[in-house]
Amino acid sequence: MFFHKKELQFEAKPERPDPVFAKKLQEVLGGQYGEMSIFMQYLFQGWNLRGNEKYKDLLLDIGTEEIAHVEILATLIARLLDGSIYDQEKASDDPAINAILSGSNPQHAIVSGMGAMPKDSVGVPWNSGYIVASGNLLADFRANLNMESQGRLQVARLYGMTDDPGVKETLSFLIARDTMHQNQWIASIKDLESKEGVVTPSTFPSDLEPSEYSHAVYNCSEGEESSKLDWLKMPAPDGSKISYEQGRPFGSVPKLEPAHPKAHDTLPMEDVQSSDPENPMK
Amino acid sequence: MFFHKKELQFEAKPERPDPVFAKKLQEVLGGQYGEMSIFMQYLFQGWNLRGNEKYKDLLLDIGTEEIAHVEILATLIARLLDGSIYDQEKASDDPAINAILSGSNPQHAIVSGMGAMPKDSVGVPWNSGYIVASGNLLADFRANLNMESQGRLQVARLYGMTDDPGVKETLSFLIARDTMHQNQWIASIKDLESKEGVVTPSTFPSDLEPSEYSHAVYNCSEGEESSKLDWLKMPAPDGSKISYEQGRPFGSVPKLEPAHPKAHDTLPMEDVQSSDPENPMK
Amino acid sequence: MFFHKKELQFEAKPERPDPVFAKKLQEVLGGQYGEMSIFMQYLFQGWNLRGNEKYKDLLLDIGTEEIAHVEILATLIARLLDGSIYDQEKASDDPAINAILSGSNPQHAIVSGMGAMPKDSVGVPWNSGYIVASGNLLADFRANLNMESQGRLQVARLYGMTDDPGVKETLSFLIARDTMHQNQWIASIKDLESKEGVVTPSTFPSDLEPSEYSHAVYNCSEGEESSKLDWLKMPAPDGSKISYEQGRPFGSVPKLEPAHPKAHDTLPMEDVQSSDPENPMK
Amino acid sequence: MFFHKKELQFEAKPERPDPVFAKKLQEVLGGQYGEMSIFMQYLFQGWNLRGNEKYKDLLLDIGTEEIAHVEILATLIARLLDGSIYDQEKASDDPAINAILSGSNPQHAIVSGMGAMPKDSVGVPWNSGYIVASGNLLADFRANLNMESQGRLQVARLYGMTDDPGVKETLSFLIARDTMHQNQWIASIKDLESKEGVVTPSTFPSDLEPSEYSHAVYNCSEGEESSKLDWLKMPAPDGSKISYEQGRPFGSVPKLEPAHPKAHDTLPMEDVQSSDPENPMK
Amino acid sequence: MFFHKKELQFEAKPERPDPVFAKKLQEVLGGQYGEMSIFMQYLFQGWNLRGNEKYKDLLLDIGTEEIAHVEILATLIARLLDGSIYDQEKASDDPAINAILSGSNPQHAIVSGMGAMPKDSVGVPWNSGYIVASGNLLADFRANLNMESQGRLQVARLYGMTDDPGVKETLSFLIARDTMHQNQWIASIKDLESKEGVVTPSTFPSDLEPSEYSHAVYNCSEGEESSKLDWLKMPAPDGSKISYEQGRPFGSVPKLEPAHPKAHDTLPMEDVQSSDPENPMK
Amino acid sequence: MFFHKKELQFEAKPERPDPVFAKKLQEVLGGQYGEMSIFMQYLFQGWNLRGNEKYKDLLLDIGTEEIAHVEILATLIARLLDGSIYDQEKASDDPAINAILSGSNPQHAIVSGMGAMPKDSVGVPWNSGYIVASGNLLADFRANLNMESQGRLQVARLYGMTDDPGVKETLSFLIARDTMHQNQWIASIKDLESKEGVVTPSTFPSDLEPSEYSHAVYNCSEGEESSKLDWLKMPAPDGSKISYEQGRPFGSVPKLEPAHPKAHDTLPMEDVQSSDPENPMK
Repeated sequence: MFFHKKELQFEAKPERPDPVFAKKLQEVLGGQYGEMSIFMQYLFQGWNLRGNEKYKDLLLDIGTEEIAHVEILATLIARLLDGSIYDQEKASDDPAINAILSGSNPQHAIVSGMGAMPKDSVGVPWNSGYIVASGNLLADFRANLNMESQGRLQVARLYGMTDDPGVKETLSFLIARDTMHQNQWIASIKDLESKEGVVTPSTFPSDLEPSEYSHAVYNCSEGEESSKLDWLKMPAPDGSKISYEQGRPFGSVPKLEPAHPKAHDTLPMEDVQSSDPENPMK
Repeated sequence: MFFHKKELQFEAKPERPDPVFAKKLQEVLGGQYGEMSIFMQYLFQGWNLRGNEKYKDLLLDIGTEEIAHVEILATLIARLLDGSIYDQEKASDDPAINAILSGSNPQHAIVSGMGAMPKDSVGVPWNSGYIVASGNLLADFRANLNMESQGRLQVARLYGMTDDPGVKETLSFLIARDTMHQNQWIASIKDLESKEGVVTPSTFPSDLEPSEYSHAVYNCSEGEESSKLDWLKMPAPDGSKISYEQGRPFGSVPKLEPAHPKAHDTLPMEDVQSSDPENPMK
Repeated sequence: MFFHKKELQFEAKPERPDPVFAKKLQEVLGGQYGEMSIFMQYLFQGWNLRGNEKYKDLLLDIGTEEIAHVEILATLIARLLDGSIYDQEKASDDPAINAILSGSNPQHAIVSGMGAMPKDSVGVPWNSGYIVASGNLLADFRANLNMESQGRLQVARLYGMTDDPGVKETLSFLIARDTMHQNQWIASIKDLESKEGVVTPSTFPSDLEPSEYSHAVYNCSEGEESSKLDWLKMPAPDGSKISYEQGRPFGSVPKLEPAHPKAHDTLPMEDVQSSDPENPMK
Repeated sequence: MFFHKKELQFEAKPERPDPVFAKKLQEVLGGQYGEMSIFMQYLFQGWNLRGNEKYKDLLLDIGTEEIAHVEILATLIARLLDGSIYDQEKASDDPAINAILSGSNPQHAIVSGMGAMPKDSVGVPWNSGYIVASGNLLADFRANLNMESQGRLQVARLYGMTDDPGVKETLSFLIARDTMHQNQWIASIKDLESKEGVVTPSTFPSDLEPSEYSHAVYNCSEGEESSKLDWLKMPAPDGSKISYEQGRPFGSVPKLEPAHPKAHDTLPMEDVQSSDPENPMK
Repeated sequence: MFFHKKELQFEAKPERPDPVFAKKLQEVLGGQYGEMSIFMQYLFQGWNLRGNEKYKDLLLDIGTEEIAHVEILATLIARLLDGSIYDQEKASDDPAINAILSGSNPQHAIVSGMGAMPKDSVGVPWNSGYIVASGNLLADFRANLNMESQGRLQVARLYGMTDDPGVKETLSFLIARDTMHQNQWIASIKDLESKEGVVTPSTFPSDLEPSEYSHAVYNCSEGEESSKLDWLKMPAPDGSKISYEQGRPFGSVPKLEPAHPKAHDTLPMEDVQSSDPENPMK
Repeated sequence: MFFHKKELQFEAKPERPDPVFAKKLQEVLGGQYGEMSIFMQYLFQGWNLRGNEKYKDLLLDIGTEEIAHVEILATLIARLLDGSIYDQEKASDDPAINAILSGSNPQHAIVSGMGAMPKDSVGVPWNSGYIVASGNLLADFRANLNMESQGRLQVARLYGMTDDPGVKETLSFLIARDTMHQNQWIASIKDLESKEGVVTPSTFPSDLEPSEYSHAVYNCSEGEESSKLDWLKMPAPDGSKISYEQGRPFGSVPKLEPAHPKAHDTLPMEDVQSSDPENPMK
C-alpha cells in the first residue's frame, strides 16, 4: 500500500517558461526509458517476486522512489509551460514566438491544458511493452541496469540542451540518482552472478545445450575487424574458450508442405508444370 | 548490403504438427524479446556507430546472424501449423481437437494461411518501441545483454513446455547461441568499463553531479530488509561508499501558476472563496 | 513523494490456483479501465492542477490509494498462477488440463514467469492513450466517473465468473471502493456544475456559439423512436429548450483545389475531358 | 445501412491556407477525443444495444451525424493544406516560411498528399482503445458525456488559437453541437439514474458488497485539504453517509509461493541463507 | 453528410450461438483487413480527392456501403454471443463448455457485455496505421484492390471454419461484394494505367531516374530459380526490357563522423589506439 | 541464412547536414510504407511460401535486397544529423537555427544520439500491423504492388522537398528500384491472373457465391457521377456484366436478445413500459 507526501523529492523550479524544452523533457517522463518505465518495471518486479525478500524490499524501495521522479518531471514540465503556447494566432510576425510555437507540442495546448502528459517527446503514448518483470532476477537486474544507463544518458543529453539553471539543477539530481542506481544494479548483478554463474537462466541443464554452438562467434559480415577484439583471446566470462568462425549453415534448405485446401493459399505451381526439366526444386 | 543462402542456419523439423505450440513459439519470434527485436537492435546499433569499427563489425556479424534465427523460427512455426487448424466446425465433439482449436491462434488460420507472423504469442504486432540504439556502446551493450538474458530465459521455458524432440533440438541451438551472446556482451561490457568506468555516460562531468544524492539508497518501502544486502557493506562498483538512508523530500510543496484563460482550465476556486480562514494553501 | 507499506490494502488470497481466471483478471489490472488507468489518471490530474487544492488533495489521495489496488490484483494473479501452466507437453491426454492450458495466457508462462503483467485480458499492453488529464476539472471528473463506472461493471462481471470465495472477497472490496468513488465524483461534479453550469468549458463566451445548432436533436437514423424520450419534453439541463429536427445539411458540396505538382497526386481528369456535357460537376 | 449526401453538414471554408493549424486540427479529427472516437463509440453502442429502442435510435442518430463531423474536419484540413508545404528546400531563408515548414506535419506532405489523416495532432494513428461500448447504458452515457466534454474543451482551445474567421465559424458549429450533446447525455443519465440509482451496475446485489469500504474517503496523501470539501458534510448521491478516514491496510504482507522449476525463476535465496537470525521475513 | 436506415443491408442470423466463432469473426470486422479498414480507407480517399468527381463519387458510394458491412458483422457477432460465456465458474466439468470458454474472447464477457468490439480476432484494437489515402489514385486503387483481396480471402477461410448455415449465408454475401469490389478496382486501375502509364507516380520526370537500376532483378538469394520466371523473357509492363543480374554493391563502405560531444556517444576508440598497424579502418 | 557486405548497395552522401530533412526521411525508412515494411513483408512471404519455388526465390531476392535499402537510409539520416541538433540552448537568437531546432526530431538528439531510428517521420515506432503475408500469392503480390506504389510516391515527394544533390542522387536510386519492383509485381500478378483468374481466392466455389450481389455497384452516395465511369459499360475484368443500382437494404431491422443477467447490461426498459401504444418496436 502507498502513501503520498506533498513535498517533492527535489525542487523543480525553472527560471523561465520554455514550452519547447517542456516538449523535450517528456522523453524522460513518458518515453521508452522515462521514469514511468522505471517505476512500473521495479514495482512489477517487486510484486511478482517469489522469495528473496531483501531484493523484493529493494525493488519496492526504488520503485516507490521513482514515482516521485515522475512527479518532479510533471511539475517541471507544467512550469515550463507557463508561457505563450496559446498565442498562436500571431504566428509569422515574430520569429522568436514562431520558434516557440512550431517547436512546442500542440497537445500541451489542446489536450492537457498546460500540463504534463504520460507520453514521450514526440507525443507517442507510454505503453507497457517497454518494460519487463520476468521472475528471473539476474535477467531483470540486467534490464534494470540498461534502463538506468539509457535513462542517465538521456538526461545528460537534455542537460546539455538547456541553459536554465533551475532545470539543470533538477536534471543533475536525476543524474545523481541514476548514478546510484547503476551502481546498485551492478552490485546486485555481481551478487547473483557469484551465486549462480553469469549465464542466465542458470537452471537450464548444460548437457542439453550443444556445446559446439555455445562459444563461437560467427563472422557473418564481411571483414574480420571483430576478430581483433581483445576479449576473444581471453576465456569467456563463463570460463570456456571462444572460437571465431566463418558463418555457415548447419541446416538444409527448408521445403514446406502444401497448405490445407481451406487455407485458399496459392497452389504449388510446380505440380502443374512438372515437366519442366530445368527446375531443380522438383 | 545483404545476401541470402537457402540453407537454414539450423534445422527446424518438428516430429509432428502442434498448432498450440506454434502459437507459443511466436513469442520468441515476434515478442518483446524475440529474434526480430534482437536482429533489429543489433543492425541499427551497427549502422549508427560512429567509429569503433571492431564493435561495428561485431554488431553487423551478429545482427546478420539473427535474421537467420527469425527464418528458423518462421520455418518451425509453419511446420507446426501443418495440422488441423481449419477443421474447426467440428468443435465440441472431440475434446482433443477442441483443445487444439481453442488453444491455437485464429490468425494462423484466418490471416497468415498457416504461416508465421511478425507478432508475439498472444498476437500483438511487433513494434520498434522494444529496441534501442543510443550511440553509447556501454548503455547499448547492457541493453543487448538484457535482451540475450530475457531471450534465453524464454526459450528455456518453451523447451520445458514441449516434448517434441525436433522442436527441442532447434530450441537447444537457440539456447546455445544465447549462451555465446551473453558471454560476448559481458566481455564487451567489461572491456568498455575498464576504459571509461562503470557509470555511463562517463563523459558527464562529475562536478556537475551533486554527490550527496549519487550514492544513497533511500528506504521508501517500510521495513529494512534491503539494508541487509551484502554489497551495501562494500564499496560501490564505481569505488564510492553507499549509504542507506530513510527516504525523505528535499523539495517543497509544488504550487502551479493559474492557467492561461485560453486553456479553459478550471479557475482556482480559492480565489473566489478567499475568506476561508482555515485553508492553509492561501 | 511516495512511501510504501508492505501490507496489502486488502487480502488477495484465492482458495486454489486458476490460471484461466488469472488471465481474465488482467483486464481490471492492465486493461482500458483497469486500476493502472485509474491511478495514472488521478495522479496526472492531481500533479497538473493549477489551484483548487482541496480537489488536488483528493486526486492525490485516491490516485495513491489506487496504486495499492494494482498491488492487490498483481498478488491475486500471481497466486492464481501457482498451478500447472508449465505442464503443457501433456496436452490432449486430460481434458481438464487442456482447458486450463488452452484458456490460460501463454505469456504468464513464457514472459512473466508466473507473475502479473501490465496488460489486459487478451495480452495487449497498457498504454496511456486510455487516460486523460485536461486541466478542466468538470471534464476530468466526468472522465473519472466513467472510469469508475466501467471499472465497477467489469469487476462485477468477473465476480459472476468465478466461484472461488477468496477471489470473490477481494473483488467485493474493489466493487465497494468503486461505489465510493462513483459517489465521490458524482458529488464533485454537482459541486462544480453548481458553480459554473453544466456545459463545459463554461468559459467559452456564449455569444460566439450559434444558438440555432446548440439545442437541436437531428434525426439522422430513419425512424423517430428517439423523439419519444421523456427528457425531450423538459427543459435541457442548461435551461434551454431542445428541438427535434430532421437531419439536413447546412453547408454546400465541397470541392477541393488541385494539388501542388510536387504532391504527385492524380491530376484532375475533368480538366482533360472538359467537353463532356453530361458531367454536372463542371 | 447508411447513405451519403454530398453537401457538408456545415461549411468548412478557411480564408487562407495554414498548414500549421491543419496539423493542430487533426487532434479533434483523429485524436483520443476526436470525432472518429465519437462516431465509432456511438455506433458500436447502438449496434450492440439489446432492447431500449429509443436510446438505440438516439445513438444511431448521433453516431451517424458525427461521421459528418469527420467529413467537415477532413475538408477543412485539406483546404488549410492548400499552401506551401512542398516548398521546403528553401528553409532558413525566410523565417515566416520556416515557421510554417517546421510547425507543419511532414506526413501531410509525404504520406497524404495534402489530405487529412485519421491521426491526432502529433501524428499518432487513431486506435479503438480510445472508445467503449459496454452494454451498460449508464456507464456508457457517462463515457459519452466525458467525450463531449473533452471534445468541446479541445475545440474551444483551438478556437482561441486561430484568427481565421472561416475556421472559427466551423469550430463554433462544432462547439454548439457539443453543447447539445452534453445536454443530451446529462438528461439521459438523469433518466437512467432515476430508474436504477446512481451507482452502476445497479444489478450487483448490495449485500455482497462490504459496506464498511463503500462510503469512506481514505486520506492517503498527507494533509487534509480534501476533508474540507463541502459535499463530505452531505449525504452521498446514493443516500449513504460518507466518512473521512486515514488510509490504512486491511490486509497482510503478501508472500508468494516459490515458482515452478520450469519457470527458471530465481530460486529463493532465503532457503540457502536460512540461519540468518535477523531476517524478519522467515 | 450521412443518414442511417434501420434495416441491415443483409441478414445476420446465425442458427445458434457460437462464442468461439464470434471471436474469430472479429478479424474481418476490426482486423488489419476488416470492414473498418475498408470503409475508413474509402471515405478518407473520397474526402481528400482533389478533382476526379466520378471516382470521388465511387469512393463515397462504396465507403458508405462498407459501414453497413461493419453493422452486419456487429449484429452477427452479438447474436453468436447469445450463449454461455458467463457460465465460466463451472470450467473443467464439461469438456464441451470448456472448449467454448477457453476458446472465446474474455473481453466479450468482461468489456463489451455480449457485444462486438472494434478489435481483431485476438483482441488487438483497430488502428489507422492499417489504411492509406495518399491523394494518388493509382497508388490508392492498388491499396484498395489489395484490401478487397485480403478481405475476401479471410472471409472465404472463415466460411470453411463454420457449419452454421445462417453464418455461411451472411459470409457468402460479403464474399460476393468483395468479388464486385475486386472487379471494380481492377477496372479502375486499368483505366488510370491507360491514361498515365503503369508506374506511379507518373509525374516524376523519367530523366531524373537512373535507368541502369530501374529494370534489373538483383539476385540476392543464392540459387537462380527466380531467373526462370516466364515474364523475365517478355518486355516489362512499362515496355522496357528487364535484366537479371547478380546482386552487388554500387556504393562504398560507409564511415560516419564522430558524434557531437553533447551526444555522450562512445568516443571512437581507434583514435586512442591509433598505433595499431593491423587495423585496416584507419 | 544471411550474410553482410560492408559496402552500401548505393552511396548515401549528402552535401551538408540537414536535421530537418533527416526527420522527414524517417518516413521511408520506418513508416507505414518505408523500407522496413517492404523487406519484412517480402521475407515473411518468402519464408511462409508452400511450393512455388521460383516466386519463393524472387521474394527472398528482393526481401534481402531491401534490407540494404534500410541500411542506405540509416546511413543517409546519420549523416544529415551531423549538424547542430545539440546547440538548442541558444534558441530564439538566430531564426535559421531556430528553424532547424524546432523542425528537427528531438529523439534524434535525446534517444538515438545522432542515429537513424526504426520510426516514421513523426516518431511513431514501426509495427508489423503494416505488413501482410497471407499464403495467397495473388493477394500478396497486390499488397506488394501497393507497397511499391506508395513507397515510390513518398520518395518522389521527398525528392522535391530537398535541393541537396547528394540526397537527390540516393533518392533517385530508390525511385529507380521501385520502378523495377512495380514492373515486377505487375508482371507477376498478370502471370497468376492468367492461371487462376482475377478474383482471389480463386478456389472459393462460385456456386456458393450469390451472383445477384457479386456484380452490382450500389449507389449509396447521392448523385450519379460514378455511373458515368467508362468501365461500367464494359465487361468486368472477370467477364461478367456490372450493373449500377440504387443502394437498398436486403435485410431486416435487427433486434437483439436481452443480455445474460451476469452481463449487468442495462435491462430492456420497454418491458417495463409495455403499455405505451405508440412504441412501434413492441
